[in-house]
Amino acid sequence: MGGFLNSLIEGGYPLDRLYPVNPKAETIRDLTCYASLLDCPDPVDHVISQIPAEGVPELVDQAIEKGVRSIHFFTAGFAETGDEELAAVEREFITKGQAAGIRMIGPNCMGLYVPDEGLAFMGGFPKQSGNVFLLSQSGANAGDIVGGLSAIGVRFSKAVSYGNGADLRAHHFLDYAAADPQTEVVTAYIEGVRDGRLFFDALKRCAAVKPTILLKGGITAAGARAANSHTGSLAGSVGVFEALARQSGAIRARTLDELINLVISTTSQIRTVHGTGVALIAGGGGFSVLSSDQIALEGLDVPPMPASVVEEMREFIPVAGTSVNNPIDANLSRHGDEDTTLKLYTLVAKAPGIDVVFTTVGGWGGWGANSGDGADDSKEQRDERARKSADELADLQEATGTPFAAILRPRGGSSDGMRAFFERAHDRELAVFPTLQAAAASVARMQEWQARRERLPEIFAG
Amino acid sequence: MGGFLNSLIEGGYPLDRLYPVNPKAETIRDLTCYASLLDCPDPVDHVISQIPAEGVPELVDQAIEKGVRSIHFFTAGFAETGDEELAAVEREFITKGQAAGIRMIGPNCMGLYVPDEGLAFMGGFPKQSGNVFLLSQSGANAGDIVGGLSAIGVRFSKAVSYGNGADLRAHHFLDYAAADPQTEVVTAYIEGVRDGRLFFDALKRCAAVKPTILLKGGITAAGARAANSHTGSLAGSVGVFEALARQSGAIRARTLDELINLVISTTSQIRTVHGTGVALIAGGGGFSVLSSDQIALEGLDVPPMPASVVEEMREFIPVAGTSVNNPIDANLSRHGDEDTTLKLYTLVAKAPGIDVVFTTVGGWGGWGANSGDGADDSKEQRDERARKSADELADLQEATGTPFAAILRPRGGSSDGMRAFFERAHDRELAVFPTLQAAAASVARMQEWQARRERLPEIFAG
Repeated sequence: MGGFLNSLIEGGYPLDRLYPVNPKAETIRDLTCYASLLDCPDPVDHVISQIPAEGVPELVDQAIEKGVRSIHFFTAGFAETGDEELAAVEREFITKGQAAGIRMIGPNCMGLYVPDEGLAFMGGFPKQSGNVFLLSQSGANAGDIVGGLSAIGVRFSKAVSYGNGADLRAHHFLDYAAADPQTEVVTAYIEGVRDGRLFFDALKRCAAVKPTILLKGGITAAGARAANSHTGSLAGSVGVFEALARQSGAIRARTLDELINLVISTTSQIRTVHGTGVALIAGGGGFSVLSSDQIALEGLDVPPMPASVVEEMREFIPVAGTSVNNPIDANLSRHGDEDTTLKLYTLVAKAPGIDVVFTTVGGWGGWGANSGDGADDSKEQRDERARKSADELADLQEATGTPFAAILRPRGGSSDGMRAFFERAHDRELAVFPTLQAAAASVARMQEWQARRERLPEIFAG
Repeated sequence: MGGFLNSLIEGGYPLDRLYPVNPKAETIRDLTCYASLLDCPDPVDHVISQIPAEGVPELVDQAIEKGVRSIHFFTAGFAETGDEELAAVEREFITKGQAAGIRMIGPNCMGLYVPDEGLAFMGGFPKQSGNVFLLSQSGANAGDIVGGLSAIGVRFSKAVSYGNGADLRAHHFLDYAAADPQTEVVTAYIEGVRDGRLFFDALKRCAAVKPTILLKGGITAAGARAANSHTGSLAGSVGVFEALARQSGAIRARTLDELINLVISTTSQIRTVHGTGVALIAGGGGFSVLSSDQIALEGLDVPPMPASVVEEMREFIPVAGTSVNNPIDANLSRHGDEDTTLKLYTLVAKAPGIDVVFTTVGGWGGWGANSGDGADDSKEQRDERARKSADELADLQEATGTPFAAILRPRGGSSDGMRAFFERAHDRELAVFPTLQAAAASVARMQEWQARRERLPEIFAG
C-alpha cells in the first residue's frame, strides 16, 4: 500500500496512529505491519482499502467486528465495470456496512484529503487547511483541482473523491459542506447523479448559504460515452442539468480552468463586484489594447476617466510616455515612488464609474526583471518583496472599498516570488489571475451569478 | 543607455563592436564611451537611439555624415503624441534619412531581436536562433510573445517591434520575412495599417509561401480607443480587416494565447493534420471525460476504436482499471514497459479514422511525481528523462506518419524537466500544448485554415 501510506506520512498523519495491514510484510516504511485489520492493537476509526476486489467483503466483515466508523474503498472492480455480478457484490457489502452504521466512500475513488488530520490522497498536497471544499466524482480531476488551486495559494477545508458513490454520494457531501464551519466556498466535479431530486435539493441548500461552483463532465456525446465507461454514470440531459443548476443558484463552470478562476473569484473580493466598470493600470501600450479588447468582449467596460480625475493625476504624472485615460500607463517604474503609486491607485479605485481595478504584478526576480535591479537577491528577499506587494494591493482594496484583481506579468515569467505572492494574496482576499482574459471572464461570470441569485428569492427561501 | 546596452551584452553582441555614446560619461559597463556618434573610431552600421526627442534631428544628420546604414529609434515623443508639430519633426528627419539611404525602425519602439547577431531588446531572450519571424507594432507584446514562446522551446529568426513605422513598416517586414531563408513561420501583432493596399498585398505574398499568423489589436471600441493613444493607429473596420485577412490566406489569432498556440501548431507536424479524428491516450477517467467534451466542442471527433484494434490491444492490456476504446487509459504506469507502450501507441496512431494522437506528458520530477520514483534525481537526470520522452514521441510520429500532440500534465506541475522537453520537442516538430483545450482548438483552427487556403487558388497565383 505504498501510495496512500506515503501520502499519509507526507501529509503529516501521526505515525503512532497509522496501522499498515498486509499479511506478507513485517514492517512497511518502519511501521509495524499487521496481518489483518483484527490484529491491529488499538481501535480503528477509518480504513483505507487498497486490497484486491475479491478481499473486500471479508474486510467489511472485519471492519464491523472491529467497530470501524468509516471506510474508503480505493479498490475498484465493482459496479463501474458494468458486470452485474460485481455490482451485486458491491450492493451486498455496502448494505452490510450501512446496517452496522459504517459510512463508506467509493468504491473506485481516491477518498479523502483532510489537511487538518494529515489525511491526503496524493503527495504534494498542502498541509495547511483553508476554506474551500471540493467534491469530485473523479480522482484525477480532484488531483488536478487541488494541484492547480493550491499552486496559486488556495487552501482546502476538505476534498473528497467519491467514485461510484455506493454509500456516501454527492448530496451527502453537499450537505456536509453547507454545514461545515471551516468551508466558505464549495466546488464540485460531477459526471452524473443517480438521485436527481436529492442532488438538486442538496445543491440548492448549499448554494443558498455558500458560493457553489459546479463543473459537469459528459456534456457532449463523446464526453458522455467516456463518462459511462469511467464511473458508469449516465450523463443525462445536459439541458436539464444546466437548467436545474441555474435554478439552484450554483455557478456553472464550463471547463476546469473556469472552475479554478471561479474559485479565485469567490474566495476574493471579486465576488463583491457590482457593476461593469473596469480600470486597468498596466505598462505597455499593446498590452493595454489587447486587454481593452478582451474586457469589452466579456461585456464589461473600460470607461474613460472623468476629466477631474485626469486633471488630478496630471498633477504628479508627467505627460511624455504615459497615458492616464484608462487604460492607465503611468510608467511607474520610472516616475513612481511608493507615495505616487499609492496616490494614483487610490484616485483610480475611487473614480466614478470604476467598479473593479485590474493591475499587473510580477517581476519579483527572474525573467523580465531588470538585471540591474534585484536580480541577485536571495529567494527570501524576492519572496518578501512579493508578499509586500500583495499587502500593498490588499491594503488599497480595503482602504478604497473597490475590489482589485492582480494579473500575472510577464508572460513566461519564472515562479520566483510567485508562490509567496499567491499565498499572501489569498489570505487577504486579493484575487490573482493567470491572464487578463481570466480576470475579465471571471468578473463577468460573477455579475451574471449575482444577478441570477437576486432573481431567485423563493427558491432560496425553501 | 543601460537597458539596451545590458540587453546587447547579455544577448552576446561582440563587445569590440559596441560603441556607447554619451557626452557625460567616460565609460559605461567598462566600454569606452564616445561624446558623439561622429567620435566613434570605426564605421558604424546600426544606431540605437535612446536619446531625448529633441536630439534626434541632429543624430540623424550625424548618422548621414558617418555613413550609418540603419537606425532604430527607441526614442518616443513624435507623431504618436497627436501633436502636429512633433509629427512634422518626425516627417522631416525620416525624409532626410531616407534620402541618404538609411533605413529606419520606429520611432517609439523596441527595435530588433536578431539572435545570430547578438542583438536583443530585452534581457533573457534566447541566444539561439530559430525559424519564427515576429513583427509587432507593440514592444510590450513583442516581449510577451518572445517570452511566452521561447519558454516553450520556440526560437526566432528575427523579431522586430516597429512602433510608429515612419520609414520601415509592416509590409516591408512581411516581404523580408517571406524571402528570409531562416524564417519558416511568420507571426504579427498589428494595431492599424496606414497603407492598407500595400499591407494586404504583402500579407498575401507572405501567406502564400509561409504560414502567417496575425493578431489584430483594437477590435472593440475600447480597444480601438487604446490603440489610438498607443501608436496613433486608427484601428479601422474590424469587419474589413477580418475579411482581408481571410482572403490573404493568413491565420487570424483572436488572442495572444491563441497566437502562441498557432505558432506551436505551424512549427510542428500539427500543421499537416487532415481530418477530425482524435485519439486520446491519457490516464484518469475524469480527465478523459472533460477532454472528450472539449475535443467535441471544437468540432473534432473522438471515434471509438475499430473492434479489430480493440482486440489487438486486449492481447497485451489487461481489462481491469483500463479503457481501450478511445479515450485510451491503458494504465501504462502499472502495465507498461517500453515495448508495450510503443506497441500501444503505434496501434492507436495507425488505427483507421485517427488523424492525430493526443497524449499527456509530464511528471519528470516534482509535484505529482511518485515520491518513491525519481523524486531525488538531479536536474540533469530529469532533463535527460524529459528529452528521452520527447524523442520517443517524435520517433513514433515519424514512424507512423500520424501527428502527435503532447499535453502537459499534471496541472500546477513544477517546471522540472519541462524546458528540456519543450526544446527537444520543438527541434523534432512535436507539438506541446499547455492544456488539452489548447490542443483541440489549435487542431480545429489548422483545419479551417487549410480548407480556406485550398479555396483560394487564384489569389495565391498572384
